[in-house]
Amino acid sequence: MQGTQKDNAAEWFKALQIRICKVFEEIEQELQHTEFSNQSAGNFTVTPWDRAGKSQDDMALHGGGIMSVMRGRVFEKVGVNFSNVYGQFSPKFSKKIPGTDTSPEFWASGISLVAHMQSPLVPAVHMNTRHIVTEKAWFGGGADLTPIFEDPEDTAQFHQAFEYACNQFDKEFYPRFKKWCDDYFYLPHRQEHRGVGGIFYDYLDCPTPDLWQFHFDFTKAIGEAFLAVYPKIVRKHMNKAWNAQQREQQLIKRGRYVEFNLLYDRGTTFGLKTGGNTDAILMSMPPQVKW
Amino acid sequence: MQGTQKDNAAEWFKALQIRICKVFEEIEQELQHTEFSNQSAGNFTVTPWDRAGKSQDDMALHGGGIMSVMRGRVFEKVGVNFSNVYGQFSPKFSKKIPGTDTSPEFWASGISLVAHMQSPLVPAVHMNTRHIVTEKAWFGGGADLTPIFEDPEDTAQFHQAFEYACNQFDKEFYPRFKKWCDDYFYLPHRQEHRGVGGIFYDYLDCPTPDLWQFHFDFTKAIGEAFLAVYPKIVRKHMNKAWNAQQREQQLIKRGRYVEFNLLYDRGTTFGLKTGGNTDAILMSMPPQVKW
Repeated sequence: MQGTQKDNAAEWFKALQIRICKVFEEIEQELQHTEFSNQSAGNFTVTPWDRAGKSQDDMALHGGGIMSVMRGRVFEKVGVNFSNVYGQFSPKFSKKIPGTDTSPEFWASGISLVAHMQSPLVPAVHMNTRHIVTEKAWFGGGADLTPIFEDPEDTAQFHQAFEYACNQFDKEFYPRFKKWCDDYFYLPHRQEHRGVGGIFYDYLDCPTPDLWQFHFDFTKAIGEAFLAVYPKIVRKHMNKAWNAQQREQQLIKRGRYVEFNLLYDRGTTFGLKTGGNTDAILMSMPPQVKW
Repeated sequence: MQGTQKDNAAEWFKALQIRICKVFEEIEQELQHTEFSNQSAGNFTVTPWDRAGKSQDDMALHGGGIMSVMRGRVFEKVGVNFSNVYGQFSPKFSKKIPGTDTSPEFWASGISLVAHMQSPLVPAVHMNTRHIVTEKAWFGGGADLTPIFEDPEDTAQFHQAFEYACNQFDKEFYPRFKKWCDDYFYLPHRQEHRGVGGIFYDYLDCPTPDLWQFHFDFTKAIGEAFLAVYPKIVRKHMNKAWNAQQREQQLIKRGRYVEFNLLYDRGTTFGLKTGGNTDAILMSMPPQVKW
């Protein structure tokens, strides 16, 4: 039963990766009037990877994933990664992870996505959903939007998409997960948020088959909400002209993204320190940055 | 007596900052044949800063410093920072710092420098020396070179300068501090070193006036060695032509520099998490980077 749950979750993450990549490639084709329209439309490069053996931290890690990266004319750099790994946590890490009191075994699968756009008028975005199984099992995920120049309509549309998805499941989800996102994507040393937020959730426990199904369905709804709303925002702005000064501000803003990911992001830090796939983890780094 | 020692150390760091900036501005004037020779020579912008009040981590911090930054035609971005701060460590931080068992009071002064060069043929460099006083007192510091394309002559010259300086004081210093540097400036997730190394030292304790003087003189010798050797390396390469592909490799290499500083560098992490001056700390970030 547990095996089937894991397979179902992993299959769904993998299918979502393919669906998202397809839509993003369509958007690449649709570009009309910008200085980049003479470039040909981008395509995803798909790289399967596997990870076996002990990491720097004495943690056994097996399994692998599929890393899809596109460097295009709308999407300057977008990475969509599917992973499905298992192994044993090192004693040091076990302490931080629920359900590892009597066994260090874990299994994890998920999809993570970061898009950095050519146009400074199109917001960057991040989305991630995952299922983790130790002696407990839980879902986590979220999505957040990082405009360079905030468009209140985009912000409202993005938030509404996730609010609607949350409300199909539990009226308390949205306010809680929106706040969690605001609290999480914050740079204390700059006293500023990474972007305009979205939702962030974790530890949606699955002690019964019903709760597993409920939280899996919720996670699927979050993935669907992302796929429905972000392409709309991209299409709304991608054909607008921008100037060099706006581009400069975009490159500076991306520096904050790098600072957040390397200083604070749990997934990045955790991944790198447990011997995860460096390329897949740092896929989130912007293609070009200025400080 | 303690006050005079602190003043002497701080004065020396401050004077070194001025001397280094002067030499770097001279180098800017000397540039001859490159695509950047039509740009006018850079000058340092000098920004005094002060820091008072409580940080995010409940740590009282006072004092300030002088941040000098130049964006020039040889030095694409170089920051030279002098700082002189004091206060009380928060309980959380006290545990990690020697000499804070009975009092959280500290005083710290130092100079830190990071240079990112226009030409991919001129190595980037980092140098830092500092004096810290709690109920103990010690010196620390070091310098390391990060070429994009290693020139074995540069590497040898850089290492020899610090080897010579170390050997005036203690024959055991150089091998120990060279190894410490190699161990420290290492990116485990890439399984590569940040550059070709140099020296790194810390906790040179000063329990007696003689030992204070000895370790202060050593620290001064390290500063002098840096000032003697790095300008030579810059002048050797700065007038050579480079191509777009070399520049591209430089921008990618700088990504590793960012990864190291934000993921592993103690000074950066410590500074940002204790409410230090963000601009002064992140002065080390390269002006332009690619991933």
